[in-house]
Amino acid sequence: MSVTFDDITQAHGRIAPFIHRTPVYSSRIINDIVGGQLFFKCENFQKGGAFKARGAFNAVHSLDEAMVKKGVVTHSSGNHAAAVALAANSRNTIAHVVMPSNASAVKKAAVMGYGATVIECAPILADREATAEEIIRETGATFLHPYDDERVIAGQGTAALEMIEDLSKTGHSLDIVMCPVGGGGLLAGTALTARSLLPEAQVIAAEPLGADDAKRSFDAGVLIEQTAPNTIADGLLTSVGKTNFPIIMQNVDEILTVSEQSIVHAMRLIWQHMKLVVEPSAAVPLAALLSREVGLGDKKVGIILSGGNVDLDRLPW
Amino acid sequence: MSVTFDDITQAHGRIAPFIHRTPVYSSRIINDIVGGQLFFKCENFQKGGAFKARGAFNAVHSLDEAMVKKGVVTHSSGNHAAAVALAANSRNTIAHVVMPSNASAVKKAAVMGYGATVIECAPILADREATAEEIIRETGATFLHPYDDERVIAGQGTAALEMIEDLSKTGHSLDIVMCPVGGGGLLAGTALTARSLLPEAQVIAAEPLGADDAKRSFDAGVLIEQTAPNTIADGLLTSVGKTNFPIIMQNVDEILTVSEQSIVHAMRLIWQHMKLVVEPSAAVPLAALLSREVGLGDKKVGIILSGGNVDLDRLPW
Repeated sequence: MSVTFDDITQAHGRIAPFIHRTPVYSSRIINDIVGGQLFFKCENFQKGGAFKARGAFNAVHSLDEAMVKKGVVTHSSGNHAAAVALAANSRNTIAHVVMPSNASAVKKAAVMGYGATVIECAPILADREATAEEIIRETGATFLHPYDDERVIAGQGTAALEMIEDLSKTGHSLDIVMCPVGGGGLLAGTALTARSLLPEAQVIAAEPLGADDAKRSFDAGVLIEQTAPNTIADGLLTSVGKTNFPIIMQNVDEILTVSEQSIVHAMRLIWQHMKLVVEPSAAVPLAALLSREVGLGDKKVGIILSGGNVDLDRLPW
Repeated sequence: MSVTFDDITQAHGRIAPFIHRTPVYSSRIINDIVGGQLFFKCENFQKGGAFKARGAFNAVHSLDEAMVKKGVVTHSSGNHAAAVALAANSRNTIAHVVMPSNASAVKKAAVMGYGATVIECAPILADREATAEEIIRETGATFLHPYDDERVIAGQGTAALEMIEDLSKTGHSLDIVMCPVGGGGLLAGTALTARSLLPEAQVIAAEPLGADDAKRSFDAGVLIEQTAPNTIADGLLTSVGKTNFPIIMQNVDEILTVSEQSIVHAMRLIWQHMKLVVEPSAAVPLAALLSREVGLGDKKVGIILSGGNVDLDRLPW
């Protein structure tokens, strides 16, 4: 049992009333720099500021009435937590979000602002998991993993679905589909969608050199865990999930790695020329295109801009 | 002879093939903070990064073949210069942009990147004007004023036209239309459009306390020149134009002034919650809404986000 394109189209029907159909934008200046035709799917405008709303809404809206009443749980300090909070809110249930005690006040406030309950724990994975399990035992709430979950993968695949549909309405068919890879929820969903709708297109992922477990796993053909990740792209720190990996092995053509410097450069280009606030993780695919020495010719590249949640007081330039 | 709403609809027909029909976005979080329903017309996504393209394209595309061959001239170091360069380019003619010798290398490069010729002069208005006049004598090129020009006013009025049209398609009718005021090109055009399409709506302008000539002129009923402006909103430093002032007196309901602190606060809210890169001038109307002590109730407010050209190395927070 795994995820199919049917699951993705069903997910889209399920979540469409709750999420934004985000726009697809281009920049002549960035096209000239890269030497191709780039189309950016603006998930920085998505609810909660990232594509994560898609997977979270699909998971929460897949629960039956009895289950949803008991609430949902996750341990995350990032975009997934905000997404789960929003999704729970839309079904009038509670989201318990386990966050490490050293998470920033801003992140806690954001998650609480979306209506979730924040439970603090010691800043180690074992304690996060133990705290979440305790909540599950006490409440019967459903655990929602940020990426290693079929419903989440199906939800994330709807971003590429909308991008490909909207571009085809304006006569554009993509040669390459790109997204960043962290846990592999977005990549697995994007790859399944691209394979079904654009069987001739290449699916290319990008990740930071400082968190290159996906690239190493992909080359080795076995899952290699990410230890001690070190990158500004804070959405891409985790290891690829067990559910995600076989989908990626089967449907992705290439995984490229990029330097920290090129991520910052790409992020700044998007801010400067597209007037879009995007987080470092979102800039990783453009960084890969900028770093490659070959030109794209007139190839059409669709890129998922994964999110726009960034600390405006700590910009990397 | 002045500008009418007919001139604005004609301008729109003239420039529509060349400019972006920019989107109108909302933010639930900002609505909750302000206590109203706000709609932002995203001219930060316009060609050249600001609404100025509208006026410049209308002016340049109003020239006959003989005139356009001789080129156009302007003296500006800001968004108008880039807009004139783009507009001249679209008619395969030359734009001469007179810039003070102390203008930043970034601004010069941007204008040259759009295909214009930059002529340096001493950083005083008299020298800028003398240099421009010399070019006109030598080349017969047409001078394009950044705001004190009927064709420019008509062009700028097309932003509100699109905003009101697009909102009416989704069933929204505005109670208030807002924009910032500097020279008054955007305000005069916006006010004429709003008066024609939404005769019941209020037209409210906003400007920095540190450059409040429009407010003082409006209250006095006579044009008062701005001397020694001091504000972060670098698009709003100039005095209101002679052509613009009577249109503003006749069609604007109120001009509000805002502090520097409130401009920075409003700008940051737009970046943080809407993921839009906007320049300080664009944030001035939201700053005015944030500063007023009365709530808006459920009033619908349309705001022109004037532009997104900001130095990412010098953010005000």
